[in-house]
Order: sequence, then C-alpha cells, then structure tokens
Amino acid sequence: MFEAVELGRKISKEEFAKGEQELRTGLLKAQFALRDQKFPVIVVIAGVDGAGKGDTVNKLHEWLDPRGLETNVFGTLTDEERTRPPYWRFWRTLPPKGRVGMFFGSWYTDPIVRRAYGAIGAAKLDQEMRRVAMFEQMLVEDGALILKFWFHLSKKAQRKRLEKLESSKKTAWKVSPNDWKHHKLYDKFVKICERALRQTDTAYAPWMLIEAGDDNYRDLTVGRKILEALEQRLANPKPTTAAHAVSAAHDTSTVTILDKVDLVTKADPKEYDKQLPRLQGRLNRLTRAAWEKGVSSVVVYEGWDAAGKGGNIRRLTGAMDARSYRVISIAAPTDEERAQHYLWRFWRHVPRAGQVTIYDRSWYGRVLVERVEKFAKEAEWSRAYSEINDFEEQLVEHGIVLTKFWIHISPEEQLRRFEERQKVEFKQHKLTDEDWRNREKSAAYEVAINEMIARTSTSLAPWTIVPGNDKRVARLTTIKTLCDRLEEKLK
Amino acid sequence: MFEAVELGRKISKEEFAKGEQELRTGLLKAQFALRDQKFPVIVVIAGVDGAGKGDTVNKLHEWLDPRGLETNVFGTLTDEERTRPPYWRFWRTLPPKGRVGMFFGSWYTDPIVRRAYGAIGAAKLDQEMRRVAMFEQMLVEDGALILKFWFHLSKKAQRKRLEKLESSKKTAWKVSPNDWKHHKLYDKFVKICERALRQTDTAYAPWMLIEAGDDNYRDLTVGRKILEALEQRLANPKPTTAAHAVSAAHDTSTVTILDKVDLVTKADPKEYDKQLPRLQGRLNRLTRAAWEKGVSSVVVYEGWDAAGKGGNIRRLTGAMDARSYRVISIAAPTDEERAQHYLWRFWRHVPRAGQVTIYDRSWYGRVLVERVEKFAKEAEWSRAYSEINDFEEQLVEHGIVLTKFWIHISPEEQLRRFEERQKVEFKQHKLTDEDWRNREKSAAYEVAINEMIARTSTSLAPWTIVPGNDKRVARLTTIKTLCDRLEEKLK
Repeated sequence: MFEAVELGRKISKEEFAKGEQELRTGLLKAQFALRDQKFPVIVVIAGVDGAGKGDTVNKLHEWLDPRGLETNVFGTLTDEERTRPPYWRFWRTLPPKGRVGMFFGSWYTDPIVRRAYGAIGAAKLDQEMRRVAMFEQMLVEDGALILKFWFHLSKKAQRKRLEKLESSKKTAWKVSPNDWKHHKLYDKFVKICERALRQTDTAYAPWMLIEAGDDNYRDLTVGRKILEALEQRLANPKPTTAAHAVSAAHDTSTVTILDKVDLVTKADPKEYDKQLPRLQGRLNRLTRAAWEKGVSSVVVYEGWDAAGKGGNIRRLTGAMDARSYRVISIAAPTDEERAQHYLWRFWRHVPRAGQVTIYDRSWYGRVLVERVEKFAKEAEWSRAYSEINDFEEQLVEHGIVLTKFWIHISPEEQLRRFEERQKVEFKQHKLTDEDWRNREKSAAYEVAINEMIARTSTSLAPWTIVPGNDKRVARLTTIKTLCDRLEEKLK
Repeated sequence: MFEAVELGRKISKEEFAKGEQELRTGLLKAQFALRDQKFPVIVVIAGVDGAGKGDTVNKLHEWLDPRGLETNVFGTLTDEERTRPPYWRFWRTLPPKGRVGMFFGSWYTDPIVRRAYGAIGAAKLDQEMRRVAMFEQMLVEDGALILKFWFHLSKKAQRKRLEKLESSKKTAWKVSPNDWKHHKLYDKFVKICERALRQTDTAYAPWMLIEAGDDNYRDLTVGRKILEALEQRLANPKPTTAAHAVSAAHDTSTVTILDKVDLVTKADPKEYDKQLPRLQGRLNRLTRAAWEKGVSSVVVYEGWDAAGKGGNIRRLTGAMDARSYRVISIAAPTDEERAQHYLWRFWRHVPRAGQVTIYDRSWYGRVLVERVEKFAKEAEWSRAYSEINDFEEQLVEHGIVLTKFWIHISPEEQLRRFEERQKVEFKQHKLTDEDWRNREKSAAYEVAINEMIARTSTSLAPWTIVPGNDKRVARLTTIKTLCDRLEEKLK
C-alpha cells in the first residue's frame, strides 16, 4: 500500500515558490467562499513520526486565513474528558459550518498507538475503525468535507529524518524519545496503520497518502489537494455521497407495540402515597452510591404531548440531590447548535462522572417531530436510527446507565388533558396551538414512534414504554425502572 | 450582625403546607414569565455548615420547574479550570437570560475558607471581596437579578444540628469530617463571614440573612424571598440600580496620544527581510518555552479598518506552532453569546496553560464600535472601562502575558488602502460599505479611541500603539513587543 509513496518525489525551491503563490491565492479565495456555503471542513493530518506533520500544519496556517481555522491537538485527556465517552473530546472540537478544523492527532491516534503497544488486539482495532468509519460517514452525510492525509516515510527515510532533526539545535526539540521508540516498532506500526487505513479508506472520506521525504513536495501537495477538494465541493454544493433513503420496511398496519400498552391499570392513591416516598428513598440512595463510584446516568424522556413528562421528571428529580443532576429541555436549537451535526447539542451535555443528565425530549426528535413535520429530509431521518444507536452504544460502553422512557397515553386521555389545560388558568401556558396541530397528525406520529421503538430498542439501550394514562402508575414506573438499572450497574 | 437571625423562628407543619402550595404556584408563574422578560437570575446559597443549604436547594428544585434551572457546585478545580483565572469557572456556569442559576458554593467560598484556615490575610480577603462586589455589580448592571442567602446557625444550634444529622442512618452521610473541623473554628469563621458579608452587602446585590434552625421556616422564607424579588423585578423591568453614566472628563480638543504616533518612519525592505525571520525565530523559541512552563498569552488586536491587522496576525502566527495558538475573530455574537454579559464571549476563549489566544478585535468593541454606533447605551459603555480593567487584571494576576495592540494609520493611508482594495479583485471582499460608513464617523471614533487608551492603558495592561502606515514597521513592532513581554515573564 505504501510503496506508491516511496518514490522520492521532490519539488525544487523555485517550483515551490511559484506554486505557493498561486496556491495561497486559491486557498484564501476558497476559504472566503466557504463562509457563505456553510459546510464544515475537517482536515486530518496523520502519519509516521518525523514526517513533518507539524511543519505542514504550520504551512497551512500560513496559507489559510487563521481566523477561519482551528487546529486541534489531543494530548493527555483532561479530567473533564476522561470522565466522558472517548469521542466527547472530538465532538467538542468539531468545526462549525463555514470553518476549517485541522486535526493533528485524531480519532485514529489512540487505537493505533494502543494496538502498536499491544494494549488491544486486532479485533478491537477493527471494531474501533468501524466506529471511525461510521463517525466520518455521519459527518459527511451531514455535509462535512473530510480530508485525511497520511504522511509516509520509509523506515530508512524516517531514521535519516530523525537524525537530521536531532543534529540541528534549531530542530532537535522536535524529536522526542517516543519518536525513536516508535521507529523501533516501525514495521509493526506500518502494518497496523495499513490495516487501519484500509478499513477507513471510504468513498466519502478517502485517505490521501503523501510522500513525506521532501518538505516542498509534501507541503505543496497537501495544500493543492485541499484546494482541489474545496473547489470541487464549492462548485458542486450537493454532497456527492448517495443519500440512501431506505423506505422503512416495518409493517405498520398490524397491531403495534404501543397498542399493547396497558393503559387501564390505575394505582390506588393510598398505595401510591406509600410507594412513592419509598421508591424515592431508594433512588436517593442509589444515585448517591452512583455519585460516589463515578457512575453517571443519562435519562431520556419522550412521549405524546401532555403525557406528563414534566411532572414525572419532577418526581424523579425530587428524589435526587440537586447537585447531582441537570435537566436539559430540548427546544429550538441555538445558532451555535444549528452550525453543527444534530447530535452535537446532545453530546455537549453528556454528564461527567457520577452525574445525571435528564433529557426532556432528546435526539429522538430527529425521527419523530423532524420526520413528521418534514424538518429533516427522508435521507436524514432514515439514517438517524443507526447514528443514534451508535451514539447510545458509546454512552453505554463508557459505563453510563442509559434509560429511555416513552410515556404513552391514549388519544382520549390526551384530549381530556388538553381540555383540562384550557380550563385551568394555571395550566393554560402549557397548551399551544402546536399541540392541537400535532394531535391532528397523530397517525403519522404513530408510524414514526413504532419505527423508532422497533429500530432503537437495542439490547444495550432498550426503551421502557411507560403506561401514562394514570400519572401515578407512570411515576412509579419510571422511578422503579431507573432504580433497577442503577442497582444492576452498581452491584 | 447575626443576632437578628438567632430568634428561634419556626413554622408549623400545617402553616408550611399551606404556604408551600401558594408559593409553588407563584414561583412557577414567575419562572414562566421570566422566559419572556429575559434576564438571568443568580441565586447564591451560602452559610454555615449544617444549616441545611442542600435541603433548601432541593426544595427549590421541587418548587421550580427544573427545566429552567441549573444548580452549580464547585468542588475541586478540574484541570481545565486550574489553568485559567479563578473566575473562569463561574463565568462558564453563569445562567443565560431567562434562566435561573443556583450557586451552591460560589465566588465567596474559596476566599472565606482560605481566610479561615489562615492561608490569606485580612487584606487579601478584603481585596477578594472587592472583586466579588465588582463582579456582582457588573452582572446586575447588565440586567441580572442576584439573590444572595446566608444561612445562619448559632454555634450551639450548629452542634445540635450536626449531632442530629449524625444520629440518623438516613442523614449521617451529610456530615463530613470537614463540618466538625469548621465547627471548631466557628467563632473565627463567623467573624470572617461577617466581614465578607458586610463588604458585599450592596444595594444591587444585598445579602438576606436566613435563620436556619427550623427547616420549614428556612425553606419557606427563602422561597418567598425569591418569589418576592422575582415578582418585583418582573413588574418593574427596568433595573433599579442607578445607571450612572459618567460623562467622560477627558479633554479631547487637545493633541492626543494618537497624534503623536510616528507614521512617517518606514522600514527598509531589505532590512525587514533580515529582521522579520530573526524576530520570528525569537518568538518561536519564546512561545515554545512559554508552552513548556505553562505560561499562556492573550494578544489583543485593535485598529482602524484596513490597518493591516490580518496580515500582522499572520506574521505573528507564522512564527508559532499551529498547536499553540488560536485566533478568535470577533464578529456578530451568536445567540448563546447574546444571552450573556458581553464579556462572556471573551472569557470562554481564555487560553489554557501554555496556549496563546489572539483576539482579532476584542472586548474593546464595547467602547469603540458599540459606543460610536450606539449599540450600547452610554451607561453601558461608560462602565465598561472599569469592567475591562478588572477583567484584564484577573488575566494578568493569573500569570497570563497580556499584550494589546492598537494599529494606527492615518486617514490618508486608510483612503489609499480602501481604494486599492476596490481595484484589486482579490482584495475586494475585504472592503464593505460598512468600512466607508465607519470612515465617515472617524471623528467620533477618534474620541472613543483616545478615551479607551487613556482609561485602559494600565500599568498591568498597557496599550502598545503600533505605527501602521508602513506595514513592515507594524509587523516588526508587534512581534518584537510580544517577544519582549514573553522574555520579561519567562526570565
């Protein structure tokens, strides 16, 4: 795979000077056009040690306008990063639309280095690369332009390069003991990289191998490839990846899981008054224990309008210490959120160790309201299922207790509550015209809900369908479910 | 001071139940109205150990809608917080307009605890309290409603309370060894707190002393005071603090500092070609050394339109490793930024240890463009000088190297550049109608600039006026200035 970039390509000083002038003008122009076209550009710079990755990044900073550009380096995890799933640190640094994010070190670094040191096996590396591929696909499908460069040097060239750097006082600091350590592992390292590259060399985010022996050739080639890709994309605003809208194959005519929810059973008020504090006490103990052990939780609330989410959440939070949780109410996104992939606004609230984040409505909006109201295109919402499953897998793998509630009520009960809200002054603000409009679309919502549950109730992150006609039953159900989940995790 | 809250006030269970119902309805209604009125509410809960601060916070969470509410606790500093000025962690948690932020532990905690343990002296405590008062004043003047509660217990009541908590299995966890340690320091502690409270008991953010011996009395009183303050503010949207617009006393008719800038001297191109790489090399070495020592830098660029800020910044960044700096270009604020105090958007980019943040335009927009274009009221921009001085003092005190450049060009030179931009296709995008409009207002800008320099060129954070008619001179000046500052700091 790498032979093609061991050809000794060079560019003379004169040729470089000429090419640089032209390239720079082009890059600045493209970067300016990018601001209006509004898609993010992600440039990954990776490759063997001593290949001059840092030099190229610096050169690109010289050529581009640094005001539309951010370079991200990923050193040791900060403690805020450490207590969240590994991709959190990448999500928080993704460039918004219209900007360029350069990734010096990226989602590739850690798996490859760990594999080279033998900390993980080949199967785990493959798994990590599958995640990388999905991550990149998701971003590209959302409009991102991803450019990945792999800087290659032969083993001999690497040794020469490191020696040369070390020989000059000006550059010796660039060589770390790690570089020599990696050099000794060169053959192993290259083999692992080849495997990783092959698995992530996709049509939507292909790798570009760069021969790194000659500084001029390397820098100019990377710059030109970036310019080429930018110009191509700017000229052709539609993403070139096939937007594979798969029509849902689920049969919606038969009896669905929602039809089977027991909406009849009521809780005896006296029994409820006894049960509730008991369960809340249990939840209090469990969330305290979770806090002490650094186990964090994510609780998702979805349900029909007027299903009683707010009151339910208050019973849950009533049992917890105010310091340990945060309720994130999902309304219209802010413009910073709109400039990112739709999952970004949820990633940013992923809890730290021991904390609980309660999402009052969530990423499922993508396949519910956004689908029904056509805010999202079919291609967008239909690919969201796997994006969501992958997101949730990352939460669970990190040890987060993930609980998802669908609070279900019958159409008749919903009508009763709407009418009650109209009557009671204190509750009027809870009922908007939109609620009535949504209600008219309940058939379309039902299709969407059923498909959502069918496709995202995974063994790692199952849905809990909560019977909501009786608020007491609903409240006891959610608290008990969360208790059981926490207990299971903490035992 | 505290005798007034050692009276043994109590509220019976029945009275509490009755009051609670009414209070809750009122709080929810007020919270709902708050969303439209769009001001932030900051509730500080402080006081002696064992006074039930946590219980009250939990109660408030029960009463209020948790969806418009965030409780912030400040435990051990995370490493991302540790490498930034102390107030960064408070800025990042300030509630946006329309929301309630509860501060359980706050800007008071650390100075008081450190004083109690003897880590700082009385003078330092006073200084810290002065900073607190300024911080709160700044937020209030910007529209925030600040409610500060101090929970008091007599020494005897505290001992009883701690013993009672310890005696039950359900509550024993609430008592930490620190609580008893603080109990032994009670007299000293109370004396320090009294001093701290007195100094920060201001008209705009008064302390409310709460007798904490009886749970019912304590919770209900705090709830009622919050409701009362909210209702009052909602009924009277204009902040009650006097917006003290002080007419600037500076004489602007005489020769100003800007008139004295030497705009004639030009750099010899050959000499420049020799000097520039030499200075860049020096800057490279110095920023690397700073990175290693964890010394971070903030560089501010301000200047007339077409003063050459962009090109100047590129010469500066050209000397640095792309991994070590970030250029923040200040344009229109995002809506998340608009929902906060104007300094918030600058605080969020304060660099971590060893990093450099370059602000391309900055917080000085408040006293320049916002003043001249009347985006900010006179009361707002005229108080910004001291807010800015205080902000910069915090940066410098934390060890950050702060450098502020005003790139100065003559009106004639500006016109020449505007016309050049019009002609050269490649530069046309740099010139907008706004630039021409700004130019027409140059007299007003000049007044603003002179006042800005006069009032914010402090010994801690002096302005460097950079002669900009000759771009080469300007570039050499900024790089050299930054080098000198870094060298001074690192020696």
